[in-house]
Amino acid sequence: MTMDKDGKVIQFTGLVMTPDGKVVKLLKQGEKRPDKLDWRADMKGKVMLPGFIDAHGHVMDLGFRALELDLSGTKSLEEAKSKIAAYAAANPDRKWILGGGWNQEVWGLGHFPTAADLDAVVSDRPVWLSRADGHASWGNSLAMKVAGVTAKSVSPAGGRIEKTGALPNGVFVDAAQALVAKLVPPPLPRDRNSALLKAQEILLGFGITATADMGTTLDDWLAYRRMGDKGSLRIRIISYSSGVEPAIQIAGNGPTPWLYNDKLRLIGVKLYADGALGSRGAWLKAPYADAPKELGLGFMSDDVMRNLMSRAAMDGFQVAVHAIGDRANAEVLNAIDAMADTYKGDRRWRVEHAQIVDPADLPRFGKNGIIASMQPVHQTSDRGMVEARLGEARLTGAYAWASMLRNGAGLAFGSDYPVESPDPFAGWATAFTRMDASGQPFGGWRPEERISREQAWWAFTGGAAYAGYAEDKFGRLGVGQRADFIIVDRDPLLASPTDLRATKVQETWVGGEKVWERR
Amino acid sequence: MTMDKDGKVIQFTGLVMTPDGKVVKLLKQGEKRPDKLDWRADMKGKVMLPGFIDAHGHVMDLGFRALELDLSGTKSLEEAKSKIAAYAAANPDRKWILGGGWNQEVWGLGHFPTAADLDAVVSDRPVWLSRADGHASWGNSLAMKVAGVTAKSVSPAGGRIEKTGALPNGVFVDAAQALVAKLVPPPLPRDRNSALLKAQEILLGFGITATADMGTTLDDWLAYRRMGDKGSLRIRIISYSSGVEPAIQIAGNGPTPWLYNDKLRLIGVKLYADGALGSRGAWLKAPYADAPKELGLGFMSDDVMRNLMSRAAMDGFQVAVHAIGDRANAEVLNAIDAMADTYKGDRRWRVEHAQIVDPADLPRFGKNGIIASMQPVHQTSDRGMVEARLGEARLTGAYAWASMLRNGAGLAFGSDYPVESPDPFAGWATAFTRMDASGQPFGGWRPEERISREQAWWAFTGGAAYAGYAEDKFGRLGVGQRADFIIVDRDPLLASPTDLRATKVQETWVGGEKVWERR
Repeated sequence: MTMDKDGKVIQFTGLVMTPDGKVVKLLKQGEKRPDKLDWRADMKGKVMLPGFIDAHGHVMDLGFRALELDLSGTKSLEEAKSKIAAYAAANPDRKWILGGGWNQEVWGLGHFPTAADLDAVVSDRPVWLSRADGHASWGNSLAMKVAGVTAKSVSPAGGRIEKTGALPNGVFVDAAQALVAKLVPPPLPRDRNSALLKAQEILLGFGITATADMGTTLDDWLAYRRMGDKGSLRIRIISYSSGVEPAIQIAGNGPTPWLYNDKLRLIGVKLYADGALGSRGAWLKAPYADAPKELGLGFMSDDVMRNLMSRAAMDGFQVAVHAIGDRANAEVLNAIDAMADTYKGDRRWRVEHAQIVDPADLPRFGKNGIIASMQPVHQTSDRGMVEARLGEARLTGAYAWASMLRNGAGLAFGSDYPVESPDPFAGWATAFTRMDASGQPFGGWRPEERISREQAWWAFTGGAAYAGYAEDKFGRLGVGQRADFIIVDRDPLLASPTDLRATKVQETWVGGEKVWERR
Repeated sequence: MTMDKDGKVIQFTGLVMTPDGKVVKLLKQGEKRPDKLDWRADMKGKVMLPGFIDAHGHVMDLGFRALELDLSGTKSLEEAKSKIAAYAAANPDRKWILGGGWNQEVWGLGHFPTAADLDAVVSDRPVWLSRADGHASWGNSLAMKVAGVTAKSVSPAGGRIEKTGALPNGVFVDAAQALVAKLVPPPLPRDRNSALLKAQEILLGFGITATADMGTTLDDWLAYRRMGDKGSLRIRIISYSSGVEPAIQIAGNGPTPWLYNDKLRLIGVKLYADGALGSRGAWLKAPYADAPKELGLGFMSDDVMRNLMSRAAMDGFQVAVHAIGDRANAEVLNAIDAMADTYKGDRRWRVEHAQIVDPADLPRFGKNGIIASMQPVHQTSDRGMVEARLGEARLTGAYAWASMLRNGAGLAFGSDYPVESPDPFAGWATAFTRMDASGQPFGGWRPEERISREQAWWAFTGGAAYAGYAEDKFGRLGVGQRADFIIVDRDPLLASPTDLRATKVQETWVGGEKVWERR
């Protein structure tokens, strides 16, 4: 089954495609099947769906994270410490112990971990571990020593060195992360190749056949090209460069064409208006409920942001701006308003995350063809934290998926992997329940912002394709579209939310070729 | 007509090719022509030759030079000054006046020009003009001021600030050029696109269908990819990266595949062992005859050069080392000797220019599969200068084309454009005469180093293809080769040297498509 271009569900019993992997025809119940066996596979009545599209992920980070120390499943600091010790022992040749995925909120720690915690398990090599949201990193004492961080070090603009008394204690927030990160040896091109292939394998295994890459660096791009040139690119990547410079350096006066049979395109530019809620980097209109002196951080001045948006838009690049706090969202909406007269036409301004929006600003997402690019699972992961950060009274416009649709915004869903698992079935189930994997809270968190099962499906397929100017290429199974589909073990339109979350992808096909199979 | 893979001349009356532009068959005199008209063009008995391959050029420099102020035809400083003034007046929007091609030897000046000469014609904007050989640049006072060059400035390693008394006088040799060059605003990607297309147009107009690009930067490469992605790359580019870093960053663990139907490949790495003779940067075994205290400049220590060669070869990149002076050539030969046991197989070590070789070293070019990549026209341009720099006694191994072949070296010819014109007919005529366009010196300069007309042709076609690992793709018209050919207005095997130099290319075809036509 699939949706048609109007978002209506269509059932079919077979799919006919061209030798180069485009859909020619969907066969209806009872319709004569072609005489000649030009089918590549007999699906034997299994459930076929269009491949999912993740509208917001970080391809290389997913691959690197998978090859590095992964703390994302840890439930306590002690568990994390034993995993770190084991990884260090298993990887004696690694000059730095790198990894991430920790979240002191999940650990119930009530504060950031410290360098001393790390020193207790690894002191012979620098250790540098990023928080689950990427907005903070945690190092051991040797990492700080290598980086020359001392009691005299001051927090840079847009960042914060966490301190105990006068002494840096090992955690670096937002822009302060660079103080240590710049000393980490950069990966070699061969490491980048491995990371890309690893990420691709993970994504295809979740039934994701296309993904936006939010923040492609020049070196990321060169890795995509190496694998594309070799014919090793199986997934489709819609690339948004990390800031304006790489887009211009790579693509010149506007987006690249689609490359490698619609596998890769640099379409736009990713910018940041603020940080994230977990590290109190999200930019709020009023102070944090749990830190009354803090408003979060605007990543750049209003003028700078507008100049960058304008510089990208001038050359026809799509603009995608990360905005989490209500102040940041308002600033981005203001900037789009200010720019709409100059940059007319089909611009598809993207607001990434759009997590906390002042209810007064919600209707503004329906103007200027804005796309809200949101991540359902963030809502369940953040629930406790966001209540603490904002307080009950300011949650009306939080993760407001239904309001976005009601106001006429475009809606595209993703996972923000590797911040969350890329699993689209978890995102899908969350979107129409606002309940987490254990069914909490019963009835859903602020359930008025649930959307329908079909609306959520569309946001993970056709809506996400539209958000990347790819709706003529893929996003549904229809005549002329790329035959990107998956075979799954149950009917996701009939499954309970719990069953939907347990869906297993059995095969993944991209452009009419089987590129992944469950073993 | 063409040569076969053994370098033998073959005459044919027609060429049959596949729809994707590969040669299927050469038709012999009297042989039945295909019934069906699957010919793309009736050449009406004109002379068809394989496209030329320039084994050593600088694609982007050619394009930029063509778009910038061109002083290469100037015969005096006064003529140059009036051209500079006219260009400045015609380009009021250019923030810097950039260009090159000057040669104080041609001007008969006897010394470098000065900043004061430039100030007399342009003083409101910085002026920065490179010497014909690229080994020196000439700026006005404003350029030096912008760069902060004063009487206190000291010459960097590998370079020299020319001074009058204690004061810098406007000319900067070799590495010293960077003092000012780093202040020149870099070209935008759109400027790079324009330069590439301009260079391509010029090269195709000379009948050059493939070229080595000696010193591709990352930004050059990104321009090649932009034009390749758009389908605008018409010429074939065999790319040698500017140093080791870009090769690894772009291609990772070894050369890229051939891209865009064999239009582009990064195959190797270009390194520099020394500078050039004109600016006395070439590294000699004994002092310059006209500067008895100078030996020229080794660009890097022996160890550094070997490390770089080794690092490139380790990942399977081809190594091409610029060596002009006899000392530099000896050092490169030593390095190849030292490396040959470690890096076995088909390595095709390239020595670029190999201009002045100690006769004792000449036989060493026949070992280890070395390719001498030489530029015939340099011999006629440099003749007077090289006699002054070296004196008569040291010219036995100078531009020793015949010795290279006799000793068993591979021989590939190019022009070093834009240092010289890319015109391959000039190079071809020079190679078997050792006389310049005006027939001087009568009988040829050191005529024992002439080679045959056919040997020279091969060095500009099949020999140049072999030098870039492309002999299975192009370089001659034979079954399975790409149909890269040109239509010319005379028979170059019968023409007198003077007539050969006057050959006009009428059409240029690459991969079976007409990509250039004389209008």
